[in-house]
Amino acid sequence: MFSRFTKFIKKEKKYLDYASITPVDSRVLVVMNKLTSSLFHNPGSLYASGVKVEKMISSARVNIAKILSGKNTNTVHADEVIFTSGGTESNNIAIQGVVDKWYEDHDQKPHIIISEIEHPSIRNIVENLSKKNKITFSKIKINNDGVIDIQNLKEILSENKNTILVSVMLVNNEIGSIQPIKEIASVIRKIRENNIYPLLHTDACQAMNYLDIQFDKMGVDLLSLDGGKIYGPRSSGILYIKRKTPINPVYFGGDQEYGMRPGTENLSAIVGLEKALQIVSTEKEKETQRLFKMQQYIFSKIQKIKNVSINGSVEKEKRIVNNINICFKNKDAEFLLFKMDKLGYEVSTGTTCQNKKEESRSVSVDALRGDCGGSSLRISLGRWTTWGEVRGLVRAIDKVAK
Amino acid sequence: MFSRFTKFIKKEKKYLDYASITPVDSRVLVVMNKLTSSLFHNPGSLYASGVKVEKMISSARVNIAKILSGKNTNTVHADEVIFTSGGTESNNIAIQGVVDKWYEDHDQKPHIIISEIEHPSIRNIVENLSKKNKITFSKIKINNDGVIDIQNLKEILSENKNTILVSVMLVNNEIGSIQPIKEIASVIRKIRENNIYPLLHTDACQAMNYLDIQFDKMGVDLLSLDGGKIYGPRSSGILYIKRKTPINPVYFGGDQEYGMRPGTENLSAIVGLEKALQIVSTEKEKETQRLFKMQQYIFSKIQKIKNVSINGSVEKEKRIVNNINICFKNKDAEFLLFKMDKLGYEVSTGTTCQNKKEESRSVSVDALRGDCGGSSLRISLGRWTTWGEVRGLVRAIDKVAK
Repeated sequence: MFSRFTKFIKKEKKYLDYASITPVDSRVLVVMNKLTSSLFHNPGSLYASGVKVEKMISSARVNIAKILSGKNTNTVHADEVIFTSGGTESNNIAIQGVVDKWYEDHDQKPHIIISEIEHPSIRNIVENLSKKNKITFSKIKINNDGVIDIQNLKEILSENKNTILVSVMLVNNEIGSIQPIKEIASVIRKIRENNIYPLLHTDACQAMNYLDIQFDKMGVDLLSLDGGKIYGPRSSGILYIKRKTPINPVYFGGDQEYGMRPGTENLSAIVGLEKALQIVSTEKEKETQRLFKMQQYIFSKIQKIKNVSINGSVEKEKRIVNNINICFKNKDAEFLLFKMDKLGYEVSTGTTCQNKKEESRSVSVDALRGDCGGSSLRISLGRWTTWGEVRGLVRAIDKVAK
Repeated sequence: MFSRFTKFIKKEKKYLDYASITPVDSRVLVVMNKLTSSLFHNPGSLYASGVKVEKMISSARVNIAKILSGKNTNTVHADEVIFTSGGTESNNIAIQGVVDKWYEDHDQKPHIIISEIEHPSIRNIVENLSKKNKITFSKIKINNDGVIDIQNLKEILSENKNTILVSVMLVNNEIGSIQPIKEIASVIRKIRENNIYPLLHTDACQAMNYLDIQFDKMGVDLLSLDGGKIYGPRSSGILYIKRKTPINPVYFGGDQEYGMRPGTENLSAIVGLEKALQIVSTEKEKETQRLFKMQQYIFSKIQKIKNVSINGSVEKEKRIVNNINICFKNKDAEFLLFKMDKLGYEVSTGTTCQNKKEESRSVSVDALRGDCGGSSLRISLGRWTTWGEVRGLVRAIDKVAK
């Protein structure tokens, strides 16, 4: 496995920020480069080479639908897979598209429910739509494990009969908590009855590498994925849109992606995404076990370090296997990050894509426990994390905590 | 030059559809691949590697601003360069963003002016906004050369005092006509006086390779570019937004790209775009001369072929050097395209990204002359077009015309 990313391994620094972005797997790069320099044609072209590119995109779409279907083949249809430029775009189309479609047939201002620990690419969308007076929204509270409170969701739903969308991430990006999407779906299904609303969207960007995403059981209408989080191409993503979901596109232009996402398709990115999903799917079980052992080892060692505590649950059902989030009592998160970087460990304070000028705080840790949002580090393991790095990490944490 | 794209040259088919999409230059690929496998970090990260990626993006932004400024350095500021996922996205942000911002401070429904030969990624945006009752819009007529009628623009402007945006492409993608953006800007400037509206946007996707885009003289507020049309990375683009232009983002998430385009930045695409622009800028003069000779040779030969006529002007000031668009009297465009493909020449009927299920018609040729929209072929030359191909093309056209 190491030879697959030698350049990365050779460097001095130990990358432990896989939740922020994953290096592109060299097996993905090989597939992409082969196509970039040969089949460059516009898939919208009518001549043979154009048609060939179009067929390759169709075939990738079919294969991706199969991979997403998992053991239950044909759960996901090819025409439910929309290629986007990444998770942020997928989230924007999902939420803005559903709201836009709603207003085609309704005058009443709709309500949207998210969790209090959503990624900025969800939080900022609903905040903006609300500021424009287009929606009202509520946030579901989380419990001590970082998992949403289903009772609170039920209360919000019963108080807001005009709820058209519930958007809850499958795995939180900061504290790694796994959200009970199946339970949420079953709550929603009871309300829906013959209605189509509320719809259910989940941002699964952090989940794909390690969770068995069962579309048939989850009952989601919309799901976002990001190529840059699964060792796939940058600026690539997927929005799964269940057939018959009432949604409009946000951007306009050509009729690519079933009219949901205009712009010339990027063959090499699409085929790279297919390859990345294939690798994830093949290696998921083994890799999950491998990282779980590392995670539990780190947790067991950390519990013995003074003034350091774990944010969130340590249970496998409640936390993704590659996430570690720890609070250093009364210390400043940025200071901790810089010290860790000096010791050779690249980690994070929280969501990476927030404003650098603002204080580094973890929104999710703040929601979990009031005192630690500005004193916590997120460590995220990944495909090239070694036991040597894990042991070194524990020593570094011990040093920094002093 | 040929060795730069040997795989492409070796293949039997002659690609003459460069206006649809350009192959990625191998010099661009080299730069991109180097970065993909080493500096993969999220530029939003606070550790040294993340900061390095951020600095490289900043440096690319500065260099691109310099290239776009041309001889008059510092015309374009780095903070006016927004990286997007391509021309379609740039156009969407430009138009939708300006309309959204307008409604923040105004109740009155605004007016937008486009030309009657805009790309679908402009046409479909204004049609959609109009359908939603958010704007009204007008189309400027074109003359026999395929160039917009400035008098008609003045009339529309005087009839629609609520015009907030004029969007005219710099070069038409189907008939290659060069639009008088400087003249449009001067008309607009007279109306503006102390006001900020109407703003001026130009889709320059087809222009960058061959025209000297003089930002200081053009007086545009917004300009769209596409990496996939300048031998650069796919799914990459630029939206130039002049400082102080009233505009909102369309998508929400992180605060990347000065808040105008959220989503993790794609270092290799950005640096690839920088390289592509560098190459275009260095080779533009020579390449323009080379293709102009080929274009004029083709025009001179075509004029002798029976039942074939040139759509639009043959003058250098009115037509981009790589575009040839010809009408085959009473023939079906798709049939012509397939015959040309069989003879080994990959050409197009018009805009590539329209609905394949619909009849292939060129909207621009329809606007130019009523009888030829469904009987015309677009041939577009490019970086790897050879004199051998050009001579063969003329023979093929002669054959197909019979």
